[in-house]
Amino acid sequence: MSPEGRLKELGIELPEAPTPLGSYIPVVRTGNLVFLSGILPLRQGRLTREGRVGKDISPDEAREEARVATINALSVLKAHMGSLNKVKRCVKITGYVASEPDFTEQPKVLNAASDLLFKIFGERGRHVRAAVGVNVLPFNSPLEIEFIFEVS
Amino acid sequence: MSPEGRLKELGIELPEAPTPLGSYIPVVRTGNLVFLSGILPLRQGRLTREGRVGKDISPDEAREEARVATINALSVLKAHMGSLNKVKRCVKITGYVASEPDFTEQPKVLNAASDLLFKIFGERGRHVRAAVGVNVLPFNSPLEIEFIFEVS
Amino acid sequence: MSPEGRLKELGIELPEAPTPLGSYIPVVRTGNLVFLSGILPLRQGRLTREGRVGKDISPDEAREEARVATINALSVLKAHMGSLNKVKRCVKITGYVASEPDFTEQPKVLNAASDLLFKIFGERGRHVRAAVGVNVLPFNSPLEIEFIFEVS
Repeated sequence: MSPEGRLKELGIELPEAPTPLGSYIPVVRTGNLVFLSGILPLRQGRLTREGRVGKDISPDEAREEARVATINALSVLKAHMGSLNKVKRCVKITGYVASEPDFTEQPKVLNAASDLLFKIFGERGRHVRAAVGVNVLPFNSPLEIEFIFEVS
Repeated sequence: MSPEGRLKELGIELPEAPTPLGSYIPVVRTGNLVFLSGILPLRQGRLTREGRVGKDISPDEAREEARVATINALSVLKAHMGSLNKVKRCVKITGYVASEPDFTEQPKVLNAASDLLFKIFGERGRHVRAAVGVNVLPFNSPLEIEFIFEVS
Repeated sequence: MSPEGRLKELGIELPEAPTPLGSYIPVVRTGNLVFLSGILPLRQGRLTREGRVGKDISPDEAREEARVATINALSVLKAHMGSLNKVKRCVKITGYVASEPDFTEQPKVLNAASDLLFKIFGERGRHVRAAVGVNVLPFNSPLEIEFIFEVS
């Protein structure tokens, strides 16, 4: 099944691609690589959860945010490519998680992003990943995820 | 107008490219991509401001530092390419801002870098970006910026 | 001398490539670039040191961990490529060091990784680098390093 078909099957409707919150653009293609800006878990342009995971936000809530950020990324990618079916593969994601100093389960949070990419793109969704904790993120976002895709 | 012409018009004189402060090199080209090392806002080899934004350093001061780091990056790029006119586009910047835990305006700080790239390269200066807060950076630098450019 | 020859000369035996600790894969090749996931200094699947450099872990201990992470990365790369002799060059490493807020010598820690790459690959081991401090990393690891290689 195609990525667009899987999206439908999963009942995921892509929102409007979020607007950059600064003087940059959401996506750049160079050769066959498509780089996305760091994506926040905005819902209709707003963060619905703020703060650090392990204090203000539970790991399960953070997983929901990682899923929202990933869906936002796909909306950015689709706005650029016309269709997710043109994606050859997901190359890499880098996930920054705003973390209390004793919260060390960043990988579990980001698995929600990775698992969704696999569900939608199948084997082509498998990617390398870096998971990092940080003390604070823009607008007090609980997480931010960068994406690199390969297209043909 | 060419990037070199814009630099002159803006009255920006590129300093000598800063020397790496460790066992790495400032720039690697692979295919049409040019990766730069993380660039600090050194002035004549020294940091003139140290510490965290939101405590030791104001947002406006941090914006000046972001501009200095960007000019340093362009000096590295020019030393490698011979001329900034050979740059096809700026692909991506990743900005790490040493931040007090309640400072959440990393994007405003990095806009000073993004805006300068746009002024110099025009549409070719538009890039994707990730803005991240961290608790501390090398040599107590207030920020560090990575750059990826495309050349032809 | 070839990279494989240098490894022998240095008495370095590559361990089994570490398994990803999450739903991602260790390596993706796209064109001539090989991206590795963020690598932890696991020894036989476990961290032997945990915590922040400058408090729980000394700079010298952290340098040992950076060396271990680099050897793990080479085992991942070799498992993918068959031989390290197929590496055209190391392009970039990004090192995240879990740091006490007053620890600012991340570059010295990461020099242990950079120096090892140079010893093994010679001039082809020279790379760009970003060194970043963060408040916490997955599983309380003292550091995590990402790698990009070029292959032919």
